[in-house]
Amino acid sequence: MLINCDLGEGFGAWQMAPDLELLPHIHLANLACGFHAGDPNIMQRTIQAGITHGVRLGAHVSYPDLAGFGRRAIPSTTEEVINWCLYQFGSLYAMALASGVRVEYVKPHGALYHRLHQDLHTLQQLCASMRQWPGHPSIMLLAGPAGAKARAVADQEGLHVIREAFVDRAYEADGRLRSRQLSGAVLSDWDQIETQARGILNGHLILHDGEGLALEADTLCVHSDSPGAVGMLSRLKSWI
Amino acid sequence: MLINCDLGEGFGAWQMAPDLELLPHIHLANLACGFHAGDPNIMQRTIQAGITHGVRLGAHVSYPDLAGFGRRAIPSTTEEVINWCLYQFGSLYAMALASGVRVEYVKPHGALYHRLHQDLHTLQQLCASMRQWPGHPSIMLLAGPAGAKARAVADQEGLHVIREAFVDRAYEADGRLRSRQLSGAVLSDWDQIETQARGILNGHLILHDGEGLALEADTLCVHSDSPGAVGMLSRLKSWI
Amino acid sequence: MLINCDLGEGFGAWQMAPDLELLPHIHLANLACGFHAGDPNIMQRTIQAGITHGVRLGAHVSYPDLAGFGRRAIPSTTEEVINWCLYQFGSLYAMALASGVRVEYVKPHGALYHRLHQDLHTLQQLCASMRQWPGHPSIMLLAGPAGAKARAVADQEGLHVIREAFVDRAYEADGRLRSRQLSGAVLSDWDQIETQARGILNGHLILHDGEGLALEADTLCVHSDSPGAVGMLSRLKSWI
Amino acid sequence: MLINCDLGEGFGAWQMAPDLELLPHIHLANLACGFHAGDPNIMQRTIQAGITHGVRLGAHVSYPDLAGFGRRAIPSTTEEVINWCLYQFGSLYAMALASGVRVEYVKPHGALYHRLHQDLHTLQQLCASMRQWPGHPSIMLLAGPAGAKARAVADQEGLHVIREAFVDRAYEADGRLRSRQLSGAVLSDWDQIETQARGILNGHLILHDGEGLALEADTLCVHSDSPGAVGMLSRLKSWI
Repeated sequence: MLINCDLGEGFGAWQMAPDLELLPHIHLANLACGFHAGDPNIMQRTIQAGITHGVRLGAHVSYPDLAGFGRRAIPSTTEEVINWCLYQFGSLYAMALASGVRVEYVKPHGALYHRLHQDLHTLQQLCASMRQWPGHPSIMLLAGPAGAKARAVADQEGLHVIREAFVDRAYEADGRLRSRQLSGAVLSDWDQIETQARGILNGHLILHDGEGLALEADTLCVHSDSPGAVGMLSRLKSWI
Repeated sequence: MLINCDLGEGFGAWQMAPDLELLPHIHLANLACGFHAGDPNIMQRTIQAGITHGVRLGAHVSYPDLAGFGRRAIPSTTEEVINWCLYQFGSLYAMALASGVRVEYVKPHGALYHRLHQDLHTLQQLCASMRQWPGHPSIMLLAGPAGAKARAVADQEGLHVIREAFVDRAYEADGRLRSRQLSGAVLSDWDQIETQARGILNGHLILHDGEGLALEADTLCVHSDSPGAVGMLSRLKSWI
Repeated sequence: MLINCDLGEGFGAWQMAPDLELLPHIHLANLACGFHAGDPNIMQRTIQAGITHGVRLGAHVSYPDLAGFGRRAIPSTTEEVINWCLYQFGSLYAMALASGVRVEYVKPHGALYHRLHQDLHTLQQLCASMRQWPGHPSIMLLAGPAGAKARAVADQEGLHVIREAFVDRAYEADGRLRSRQLSGAVLSDWDQIETQARGILNGHLILHDGEGLALEADTLCVHSDSPGAVGMLSRLKSWI
Repeated sequence: MLINCDLGEGFGAWQMAPDLELLPHIHLANLACGFHAGDPNIMQRTIQAGITHGVRLGAHVSYPDLAGFGRRAIPSTTEEVINWCLYQFGSLYAMALASGVRVEYVKPHGALYHRLHQDLHTLQQLCASMRQWPGHPSIMLLAGPAGAKARAVADQEGLHVIREAFVDRAYEADGRLRSRQLSGAVLSDWDQIETQARGILNGHLILHDGEGLALEADTLCVHSDSPGAVGMLSRLKSWI
């Protein structure tokens, strides 16, 4: 079970998360590529820190939305989404390769993550396009039943899928993440988080209503900007 | 003798030059990569048009300066310049490779072009870094004596150099382009341009004061946003 | 009957319309304020040119969307829309006042124009806020039945409304502009445009299906980026 | 003696300083206006918080340089500087006035602060222009001999000058701030800071070499992003 974390989410003089403290505890670093966060200098520093800690690098691709941190669904065509993703992936890919490492996967960020789990046509075109990109990247998508259709699309296009589960977010019975609008969406109690993490490791979650949910995952996502992210990661890693 | 032209210099709804009319007449297309102009959608359209016309693609890398069209010298360290160039090169490289073509060279744009012919330390570091980039790109630098030091730096780092001369700009005795501040800097009379083009083909220019200047070039640059660019290119190509 | 036109829609080195040729023919200039187009230097030049030609100035306020020219509906709350509009209005207001002129009205642009004719709550809050702005600006909204609800909202908040009709766009029976997706949406034949302009002057349009539409307007909008805009304006003004 | 602090220096999801903790301790809030930091939503929130705490508002105007936080000297003409300042001032002015408060002064930020103390022609033109702006704003400039020429220029143009001194920066014998490149440039020891603050109140500083420096100031600047800013402000205010 791998731990993934969003890194390099600053811009210019601004910083979002304590990247250097998070890095020792993770396996997969999703690097912002300048569209929701990140700029070439931050990307370079994050690549170098990632290499030092031996983590694997992914491109955290987003809508072009610095002002909204990629959380706004920018109206756009399928072609625009592909162009935006390819641009971001390529920029990170060349920077990493100049230091001798490969970008291994793509993870859509924020509103684009949601779009690609609904708009399967765009996902399919993106995956077909990704097959032509340098390095044959994998794609990170939602684990469990709510991500099944999207994962099948990527699979059919011949992309390797990394199935992602969340240790600090409650799940609904259909496998979707509980909306942040609702109470109990975000887990902050360590016992709850540990229970959820053990559930993900066993492929079987207990939901808030006591029901069970089957969910096979390859990686756990920890949000880098959660207040207790470093502590959570440190405990998770020692324990996994 | 190849003809090169700056393409894809629009942004969003804005257009700079009649790219589609220029493409049939050129060999090398310097594509803006989003820093002084260009956005991923324009880049994609320009790549596709370039493929249709069989031109070779280069990354026209710039300072991050959309508002100033890359003509302002943005204060920056050597490391920042390399990060910016790598980011831009990579974005174009991946977009082109997804369509099966390679980006063959890098041409610095505007104020960065001037910087890299003066700041040889930054140029040297950039070239050393470019050796690690995918596709082993060449670099386009100024032909003639004024570019000799810069070309030597690139050469020493093992990069192939494409020597560029200008058909519509007057030269000074030391091989530099005559400053746009001075009269006679830009040639607009076709006879003058033809004389200059023939001079470049023969490796020997006649300057405005009647003196001669030896200048060996691999490519002629025509400015895409000159009013008569299409006509000039059409005549040049038929004639070369 | 006043003629209004969108001006100052360039950015940095890019230009959209031949502003200086349009200015002699219009009464109201809707100036871009940096969000969909325009930058402080272009705004200053356009203000000065507007003063020279004695036109009245309005703030053409938009979603923050340079890359999409304000045509994309950026997801946003009512509060964000008000903040964005106020920011833009204020920037233009101070620039104009430094030259001794007042910004007399606000015209929403592109996707925001559409939003404010549908989302009457946001429109109402915006109008209430505009009452506090310097100079007590008016607001330009759609003439005819399709703009009736929006105009009533502005009216109730005590704002003067400038009712706008379009000489080069076909109308539907309910008073909405015919969608650009449909054929016949844009009028390009001069006879058609003249017929439509005369209809607007008389307060009664003949639609494409022969039906009539009552429509009282204070101003005619001519799109500055239409290919024949200068000719159209010149004929319109001489004739009105 | 008034205390001033730079506020609203976030952008989108990013935050720079703990504004809400700083506000109770200051008299003058220099608000970022979107060019080096700040966006309309942050500006609105900061204006409202400023009103709650009864502080006076100033426009913290900058080069257009979000990526460099206004610390880079963007090459620009006098006219461009004026347009940029006016745009920023106006945006804040209208936002504040919509809530019934006035922007009382302008403080140049970062690299522009340095430029305007050297480039007196641009300062003079800016001040002449500011005389026409709404609200007749004052200008904040460096106290002491190093700011004398700049203050005389503003004075001659009829602007009220607010003279600013720094409690946490060492001064040179000529009244300039000791360069951050040199050791001892930034004071972090509380005793040193208190000594310096008392010196500023008495109009007479003791320099690091023991020499004295006469310096009359109207306001003390505390850097909002210093690690101990809240503590420093709290002690300063209770003590002044």
